[in-house]
Amino acid sequence: MKKILGTTLTLLGLAVFGQAKEDSIQFAKISTEILNKGKAYNELRELTKNIGHRLSGSASYEKAVTWAEQKLRDAGADKVWLQEVMVPVWVRGKESLQIKTSNGKWKSLKMLSLGNSEGTGGKNVSGEIIMVRSMEEYDKLPPEQVKDKIVFFNYPFSQTYIETFRGYGDAAKYRSTAASLTAKKGGKFAIIRSLSSAFDDVPHTGSMRYQDDKKIPAVAVGSTTADELAELLKSQKITAKLNSNCGMKGEKLSHSVIGEITGKKDKSVIVVGGHLDSWDVGEGAHDDGSGIVQSIEVLRTFKNLGIQNNHTIRVVCFANEENGVKGGVMYGKTVKENNEKHLFAIETDAGGFTPRGISLDMDNEKRKQIQSWADLFLPYGIYDFKNTYSGTDLYPLHDLGIPTAELVPDSQRYFDIHHTEEDTFEKVNRRELLLGASTLTQIIYMIDKNW
Amino acid sequence: MKKILGTTLTLLGLAVFGQAKEDSIQFAKISTEILNKGKAYNELRELTKNIGHRLSGSASYEKAVTWAEQKLRDAGADKVWLQEVMVPVWVRGKESLQIKTSNGKWKSLKMLSLGNSEGTGGKNVSGEIIMVRSMEEYDKLPPEQVKDKIVFFNYPFSQTYIETFRGYGDAAKYRSTAASLTAKKGGKFAIIRSLSSAFDDVPHTGSMRYQDDKKIPAVAVGSTTADELAELLKSQKITAKLNSNCGMKGEKLSHSVIGEITGKKDKSVIVVGGHLDSWDVGEGAHDDGSGIVQSIEVLRTFKNLGIQNNHTIRVVCFANEENGVKGGVMYGKTVKENNEKHLFAIETDAGGFTPRGISLDMDNEKRKQIQSWADLFLPYGIYDFKNTYSGTDLYPLHDLGIPTAELVPDSQRYFDIHHTEEDTFEKVNRRELLLGASTLTQIIYMIDKNW
Repeated sequence: MKKILGTTLTLLGLAVFGQAKEDSIQFAKISTEILNKGKAYNELRELTKNIGHRLSGSASYEKAVTWAEQKLRDAGADKVWLQEVMVPVWVRGKESLQIKTSNGKWKSLKMLSLGNSEGTGGKNVSGEIIMVRSMEEYDKLPPEQVKDKIVFFNYPFSQTYIETFRGYGDAAKYRSTAASLTAKKGGKFAIIRSLSSAFDDVPHTGSMRYQDDKKIPAVAVGSTTADELAELLKSQKITAKLNSNCGMKGEKLSHSVIGEITGKKDKSVIVVGGHLDSWDVGEGAHDDGSGIVQSIEVLRTFKNLGIQNNHTIRVVCFANEENGVKGGVMYGKTVKENNEKHLFAIETDAGGFTPRGISLDMDNEKRKQIQSWADLFLPYGIYDFKNTYSGTDLYPLHDLGIPTAELVPDSQRYFDIHHTEEDTFEKVNRRELLLGASTLTQIIYMIDKNW
Repeated sequence: MKKILGTTLTLLGLAVFGQAKEDSIQFAKISTEILNKGKAYNELRELTKNIGHRLSGSASYEKAVTWAEQKLRDAGADKVWLQEVMVPVWVRGKESLQIKTSNGKWKSLKMLSLGNSEGTGGKNVSGEIIMVRSMEEYDKLPPEQVKDKIVFFNYPFSQTYIETFRGYGDAAKYRSTAASLTAKKGGKFAIIRSLSSAFDDVPHTGSMRYQDDKKIPAVAVGSTTADELAELLKSQKITAKLNSNCGMKGEKLSHSVIGEITGKKDKSVIVVGGHLDSWDVGEGAHDDGSGIVQSIEVLRTFKNLGIQNNHTIRVVCFANEENGVKGGVMYGKTVKENNEKHLFAIETDAGGFTPRGISLDMDNEKRKQIQSWADLFLPYGIYDFKNTYSGTDLYPLHDLGIPTAELVPDSQRYFDIHHTEEDTFEKVNRRELLLGASTLTQIIYMIDKNW
């Protein structure tokens, strides 16, 4: 397209008067500051390229702690500290999955052990694959058909939902429960089709849970491998052989990183945060490096624009969201113990994509008040205030009765790359990332002023 | 993030009754059909990978004509035909731009001649670079300071606008007029900073125009080269040397490709289209391969779902949008000559990104009617009906008083890759592309039913 639009400058914000006009002008200042001078994109490059992925308990996570501490100071925080938290240490190690078809030859499949899964202890574990398309189909299988088998849960990610989180939610039980369900009927290990919206061969890891002491391995394969396996199984028996070394290696002392600018009127706290840990593949760029650098951008923008914050604006870089939520739980526990008044907490943990809305997990009165600000947000493409969930790390705060929220970015690309080798800096767009930071700053500006 | 949303299925569409309920159900059918069975993504792979870029007058454009004809037949068109149109033949050929700094060595810069520009005829043309930051600055320069010089228009793409089309519109005059302005004051050729929202070294081509017979060359460099040049020019004189072979090589007979499903009630026409040509770099994936495959998807979806269309639904794959708009002009001329009643025409030529709205270029009454359907679109993330432009190819129809429109996708990434080597299939996301096709089908379903 080559169309040249008229260059008439539509004033950002709305042609309104008084209070709303003042807010509209402040919204435009925030957006202009961040789109032109925001550092989130360059900081994300540092985090992903200099440190890379950073699973809880790893040396790279500790490097990320030091990095985040420094970035919060650079952004102008009045106070920066580390919050101690014990985190699980899960290690992947070397792993391989092979199949043998009727031609008698072994073939390697691209795979990832699921996070928190135990491995085979470096030994080969093999058996015949049986495939089910759904939980209902699996439930009907008698144990004798599962005993000593490898169960392949080939449940596809639903393409039908417009918000891909719903497709993810729909398929998630396969990842969390496949191993325990397989173990209960005497199977040797479980293979799942990745929770992926893409039709490619990228395996997605992510956390699983054991329901009891029978801890057998669970691994994921990409969509095309899953389809090929299903096709092969139509005509022949297939043996799978897994060799893996993953497993839990106890706990370790680690830290969430916290920085704040002190409230000018009182010390009530408004939290904005993301999680500093990531899975141990790719670079944790969208999940959740984006959320970390956006949260730091909020603090920097308040400082740079000299906004007089009534309340304390606090950035929390949570430890261990991915496989334990120990950082979120510890933060909530500390708030409760110290009886520290929190007005509002928002997380950004759904990717650094163009923002579309804010999900509001709070009572109706507060939700309606925020929704009444919708006209201020609309010029920034923020129109969606209907959802009612909030970030995982914030559930402990929610349980204390604190209004919580989450940034809602466009969800179309997230589950193509989520928890994979493909979640890299190159997949993040500068303007999309910065617009998310702008939305966060705008909502916090409004909360700080009105609550 | 690992949050698992509740799997409660929110019924797509709205809990409403009667007519609106019927429409809501049809919207969900359209979306589900396209997200699950849509072929647009695979067709785009064919167009971009088997044919590639396809400038008017090139052999690859003619291949694209044959391909589009076949795809329209495959999609179930009742009638497919080619519309003859004479198109300009512009050829790039070999080209290079070098600079010599104070160290006396020549250095090559990444560059692209602007589309429609004449070259140097294979000879070296060199001179000292003078830089201006804006049109206003250039206007103040006396001709003697420009004579025999190379003028470097280093006007940055504004990051401030939320819709990047506005930043593009703001900077576009530099691309269209730099050569003629430079020639008027006796300069040898013009260099422009690319119309790019990215901070990288990718040059963007795109059409320019000569205002008179003094046809000197114009070329574009990427953002980082522009910044480096500006930095060098602070401390030293720089000589630039251009050698290029581009230029207009007359005209050629070519074709727009048209396919339709006949109206069941009457033969009034509803048009959906994009342009089949692209610039001669990259693969023309977002611009506008996406629009072509989305338009074909609309037709296929009407057929596959057995929707009884009252009026004729016509797909137009316009020739020569990029450097002449001859296809759009010829289509409008034919409509006028044949007095062919058109109810509505919509173009998709702003990239295959997640759709956000529909821009409506029509009288207030019709615009308001479409806006009254907003609740039907909202569950699909379509909320923005405020813009009032339509696609370039549709201006001739607009001039005939026909209501015209354009799909409005998210604009954040478009001008990073627009008219560059980077506009490739890999930059298009399957779900984003298909959602755009779904929105187009939904609006045409409503127009067909209500107009």
